[in-house]
Amino acid sequence: MVSISREEVIVPLDVPKAMRETYIDNYMEITRGTGRLMLFAGDQKVEHLNDDFYGEGIPEDDADPEHLFRIASRSKIGVFATQLGLIARYGMDYRDVPYLVKINSKTNLVKTAQADPFSNLWYDVEQVVEFKENSGFKILGVGYTIYLGSEFEAEMLVQAAQVVYNAHQHGMVSVLWIYPRGAAVKDEKDPHLIAGATGVGACLGTDFVKVNYPKKEGAESAEIFKEAIKAAGRTKVVCAGGSSDEVETFLRKLYDQIHISGAQGNATGRNIHQKPLEEAIRMCNAIYAITVEDSSVEDALKIYKGK
Amino acid sequence: MVSISREEVIVPLDVPKAMRETYIDNYMEITRGTGRLMLFAGDQKVEHLNDDFYGEGIPEDDADPEHLFRIASRSKIGVFATQLGLIARYGMDYRDVPYLVKINSKTNLVKTAQADPFSNLWYDVEQVVEFKENSGFKILGVGYTIYLGSEFEAEMLVQAAQVVYNAHQHGMVSVLWIYPRGAAVKDEKDPHLIAGATGVGACLGTDFVKVNYPKKEGAESAEIFKEAIKAAGRTKVVCAGGSSDEVETFLRKLYDQIHISGAQGNATGRNIHQKPLEEAIRMCNAIYAITVEDSSVEDALKIYKGK
Amino acid sequence: MVSISREEVIVPLDVPKAMRETYIDNYMEITRGTGRLMLFAGDQKVEHLNDDFYGEGIPEDDADPEHLFRIASRSKIGVFATQLGLIARYGMDYRDVPYLVKINSKTNLVKTAQADPFSNLWYDVEQVVEFKENSGFKILGVGYTIYLGSEFEAEMLVQAAQVVYNAHQHGMVSVLWIYPRGAAVKDEKDPHLIAGATGVGACLGTDFVKVNYPKKEGAESAEIFKEAIKAAGRTKVVCAGGSSDEVETFLRKLYDQIHISGAQGNATGRNIHQKPLEEAIRMCNAIYAITVEDSSVEDALKIYKGK
Amino acid sequence: MVSISREEVIVPLDVPKAMRETYIDNYMEITRGTGRLMLFAGDQKVEHLNDDFYGEGIPEDDADPEHLFRIASRSKIGVFATQLGLIARYGMDYRDVPYLVKINSKTNLVKTAQADPFSNLWYDVEQVVEFKENSGFKILGVGYTIYLGSEFEAEMLVQAAQVVYNAHQHGMVSVLWIYPRGAAVKDEKDPHLIAGATGVGACLGTDFVKVNYPKKEGAESAEIFKEAIKAAGRTKVVCAGGSSDEVETFLRKLYDQIHISGAQGNATGRNIHQKPLEEAIRMCNAIYAITVEDSSVEDALKIYKGK
Amino acid sequence: MVSISREEVIVPLDVPKAMRETYIDNYMEITRGTGRLMLFAGDQKVEHLNDDFYGEGIPEDDADPEHLFRIASRSKIGVFATQLGLIARYGMDYRDVPYLVKINSKTNLVKTAQADPFSNLWYDVEQVVEFKENSGFKILGVGYTIYLGSEFEAEMLVQAAQVVYNAHQHGMVSVLWIYPRGAAVKDEKDPHLIAGATGVGACLGTDFVKVNYPKKEGAESAEIFKEAIKAAGRTKVVCAGGSSDEVETFLRKLYDQIHISGAQGNATGRNIHQKPLEEAIRMCNAIYAITVEDSSVEDALKIYKGK
Repeated sequence: MVSISREEVIVPLDVPKAMRETYIDNYMEITRGTGRLMLFAGDQKVEHLNDDFYGEGIPEDDADPEHLFRIASRSKIGVFATQLGLIARYGMDYRDVPYLVKINSKTNLVKTAQADPFSNLWYDVEQVVEFKENSGFKILGVGYTIYLGSEFEAEMLVQAAQVVYNAHQHGMVSVLWIYPRGAAVKDEKDPHLIAGATGVGACLGTDFVKVNYPKKEGAESAEIFKEAIKAAGRTKVVCAGGSSDEVETFLRKLYDQIHISGAQGNATGRNIHQKPLEEAIRMCNAIYAITVEDSSVEDALKIYKGK
Repeated sequence: MVSISREEVIVPLDVPKAMRETYIDNYMEITRGTGRLMLFAGDQKVEHLNDDFYGEGIPEDDADPEHLFRIASRSKIGVFATQLGLIARYGMDYRDVPYLVKINSKTNLVKTAQADPFSNLWYDVEQVVEFKENSGFKILGVGYTIYLGSEFEAEMLVQAAQVVYNAHQHGMVSVLWIYPRGAAVKDEKDPHLIAGATGVGACLGTDFVKVNYPKKEGAESAEIFKEAIKAAGRTKVVCAGGSSDEVETFLRKLYDQIHISGAQGNATGRNIHQKPLEEAIRMCNAIYAITVEDSSVEDALKIYKGK
Repeated sequence: MVSISREEVIVPLDVPKAMRETYIDNYMEITRGTGRLMLFAGDQKVEHLNDDFYGEGIPEDDADPEHLFRIASRSKIGVFATQLGLIARYGMDYRDVPYLVKINSKTNLVKTAQADPFSNLWYDVEQVVEFKENSGFKILGVGYTIYLGSEFEAEMLVQAAQVVYNAHQHGMVSVLWIYPRGAAVKDEKDPHLIAGATGVGACLGTDFVKVNYPKKEGAESAEIFKEAIKAAGRTKVVCAGGSSDEVETFLRKLYDQIHISGAQGNATGRNIHQKPLEEAIRMCNAIYAITVEDSSVEDALKIYKGK
Repeated sequence: MVSISREEVIVPLDVPKAMRETYIDNYMEITRGTGRLMLFAGDQKVEHLNDDFYGEGIPEDDADPEHLFRIASRSKIGVFATQLGLIARYGMDYRDVPYLVKINSKTNLVKTAQADPFSNLWYDVEQVVEFKENSGFKILGVGYTIYLGSEFEAEMLVQAAQVVYNAHQHGMVSVLWIYPRGAAVKDEKDPHLIAGATGVGACLGTDFVKVNYPKKEGAESAEIFKEAIKAAGRTKVVCAGGSSDEVETFLRKLYDQIHISGAQGNATGRNIHQKPLEEAIRMCNAIYAITVEDSSVEDALKIYKGK
Repeated sequence: MVSISREEVIVPLDVPKAMRETYIDNYMEITRGTGRLMLFAGDQKVEHLNDDFYGEGIPEDDADPEHLFRIASRSKIGVFATQLGLIARYGMDYRDVPYLVKINSKTNLVKTAQADPFSNLWYDVEQVVEFKENSGFKILGVGYTIYLGSEFEAEMLVQAAQVVYNAHQHGMVSVLWIYPRGAAVKDEKDPHLIAGATGVGACLGTDFVKVNYPKKEGAESAEIFKEAIKAAGRTKVVCAGGSSDEVETFLRKLYDQIHISGAQGNATGRNIHQKPLEEAIRMCNAIYAITVEDSSVEDALKIYKGK
């Protein structure tokens, strides 16, 4: 079991003095005292519309948005990331879930061939804080997506800088999803480019940066991912789960990201919620076991299999 | 007769504590205590210019904007949705009508072939609240249209998020009209895409989302519409009436949307106001009977026929 | 002589209670107690640059902007509409003129073939109010132009909504100039389209909407204009004077607009100021006679001829 | 020697009552009590980059920005117009110079063939006022450039309206540079178009408008310029100096602009600063002699020649 | 050893009186009492992504962002320029480093062939001040990049003007990076164009302007650079280091920039941090020796070689 003490938490200096303890509380809670983040990603109802929730091979449970909340409340997770609107309507029945508000979103209708992607800020951080106080929920952090290399990069970098800065002003943890995308981007999985992305995350001062796992002909992803971990410095890197994968493969990849590459967690959506409730819960717990409880792949697999 | 108690109303958590009772009042009034919404849509004077109000097959009554208010005041409806400017000039003579301010609008002059649609926010919600207080009217809610897949989607998603959030801040009910439209959208009536739209409505936290009734070669609309109802979760789906239809067909469609698909109401404009006053009133009452009073198609048809 | 009582004035409900009497004062003064508006339009120095003021067939008097003020101060008019900057520099010598600030303007240099028209808001209404208070002038209203069907329609609809709303907040009268124009508009004088424009004016809550007189092969303009008057409902329609016309033709057209079509006034510029001072004054008085004093064309013509 | 009394100054009515005396002070000082403006233009380091200051035929003195301040402080001028940044860094050594802050600027790198010109507002007027108060300098006015006919005209007209209005709010004098330019403009020197420009200046309420001297095949510039002077009405017209000219030609042109066309001054840059210091000072004084001291060309030429 | 007294510091007049001593403190500290600036540039993790930090010929030390802080804390420098986010996360362990916040940044993904460059303001200066006060760090200044000749020049000139003005309002030193770039710019290293750039810096009132070293076929860079130094007047010019160079060549170039051209310092990044830590520190000290301590190239080279 990995663990860090409150003293080991590096509090970024845009957190005001009066908010340092709040920040440490949030950081310890979101990482379950380990510095590692298991983020259950549930923002795809905008990002991918209903594609991830309904159709061949997707269990019926997933058609109902409440599926996400049921999983989040009954599994071990670091934080459940989704849009404020969903939290506002389901949260009263899932009060103990640790939440992260995904503060920008776009659909996948306009393709890059038509126009470069822009995901716009739906709320300012002050509204999230207001919502947090009104609801009394555990809203531990805020998440924002940047499409690096998009012709709208300039707007997104500013919004991201403001989201991180203002989240810290209120003692909240920030997570940036940074994906190179747009007409200018030839290979979204290029390890060097992904290292550029995590470096940008560091310069924006985010606590965590979520990127895609790099892929390169003839190279081990776990090895080439190291460049990105180093480039991020004290900003922690978590890896996006991506599309649905065979479970053991998925868990091993996750294990390697942490133990070979040096990632500090993962952000997983479809690999969890595209399963019936009970299986999804066990999958969540298996991922949590590797990420937070420092389990082996074998032990995690047992959890998944319910043994 | 369907009915819900005040305790059954799910108050979204962006409604401040001090506004919870106001929200429940508005929600109960707009759904007439049933949770189902019968929205009389009267915003087409901008959306379709004078096309819906004057011309072959349209009765002369409809040429005068007051026609809409006459219908709204003498029929059974959940709420009458129109632009603030019209309410400001007719409302003093129609004080008892329950109103919803349609807060953005555009004309149909620029076609999608020329430029993607953008319907801009005419007022901020605070001005609607100020208007409500000054007029003393029953302004129960605010409505906003999003064209999903438009190149202006990013702006509209933000405006919609703000409209819902701020409506809730003041205890008002929100209705989002969500229509996929733009160069990127090949089939606006695709059931899977419409389910995407209702899911976006849920993520935006709206109380009601109005969408077009899906259509698919070889499929029953009432069946394929179920996906959208499920995707919306706790956000209630109401179906747009669309262009004028034969009455019995229209009422049966409406009945099926509620009883087969699971819709929680309807939003009807042209099928009501493109009739002479007395007939329009009976049509309104027939729609209300199915939606709110849980009548059969046959009973509703009797109301329409004035029997 | 037509006349209305203060009680007959319909005060729109975005006028705050404390401003109702001010609004009625302004409305009665701008319509000279008749509900009809004779607007002397003097905003063309931006809209048409110097084309309307200098050149063949234009008397030398018109080359000097003061010509407009001389006419306005010595004639019978409802209100003189021009830019704030001109009022600021001439108004001290023409204190008794009733003014309307034309709050947006553009030149005619960029043609529709190059880019769709956008006329931007020069001041916010609060600045007009500040100016009114500082100058002590009779600034009765505010005017704004919308190009419906322009690719910039979205911005102009919002600015117009705000101008009307904020003018009413301060008890001032609003006039919207609404002209369909842009790549999407094939026939700017189409009666059905112009009825669409007046309907949009109604939805924006304006007191008066100024449109072009419709024209259609084989139809009487005065007849086909009725659709627009009806579509506007309680918003009053005034007709743009257009380019210079033979006097009797012009007066008869005006008479028909009021007595056949149902227009509630007119907005005339070039037909007045493109005449030497004394003739311009008599022309103004003739137009006023028809509009406000309910004269016959023959009596108005006598006034014009100075008989 | 021309002269006006304080009572003859027309104070525009957007100058608040409490600022009227300040405005008159500034107006009298900037026109040296004559109503005529001799503006020494020193904003070209942005507008033309280093082209006007270094190269063949330009004396070495001009390579140093301080050259402008040396001239301004040792010559007779009405006002020295330049960017705030330069004033901030040299002004402490040139405290007695009367300044006008040129508040927008652009470079000449992007040509009209590539994109229409847009010169953006660098500061708001409140910052200029703050700077004036902090520095204790004689900042008598504010200057802004509009490119009429540019696709960015809409933005510039609004910024100009705000600059004039807010300058007046603080009792400062406004000067608008108005140049027709952009893809839509075929002949920038067309006298009728330039008259359109001065008319726009009048509608914007500016005190002075600076335009290019018109040019037309077969016509006397001094004659055809009259249209622009008339169109401006009470707004005073000053003529841009343009590129470097032979001295006597230049002075005669200036004399004719005032005595034939009716211009109320001039704005000269390159014809002054592209000379060695002592010659530049004498040139300044010669221009001042014609503009403010009502000298003949011959007397002014003597001043220039140092006789 | 060069040195200036506090009295010799020219305090720009947009520094409020109450902030004059703070400004002088910051200016003296950033130039180490010499008026010359040795700026260690560490903003490339956004500007060049990971290209400058990882790859062939780059030592492994440089892969970790902390490398920059290690160098900055153990070398002699004037100031270390980097993004706020990095300072926020490393600064607590490097409290004595003098910092400059690079307040805008963009990546190099979108090339000029696709779209002109725009680097957007990430924070307003007030947030930097807030951060400075909260952290207690020595944040001496703010830096901003302008791409002159870009189609986004208008926005960047305004942001730069505001950054300089507001930095001065709080007594901080401003540095502008000004690079001509975009479709309109044919030769980014043209000496005359670079002189234009430094002149723009002067007009924006910046304390320091960083430009590229000019290059022209058949001319000595040190000679042709003089034009830019002169054009900047009292604004001090520092030269960008550019890509990695052979050490002696680099130091001699730097020496010549100061002693031949008249530059007042340098801004160096890759030539420092693309070396292992100890060598990087010696390199920094060598550059500092020439810039601040007025050493010869030979003495500086000895420092670099650790002799």
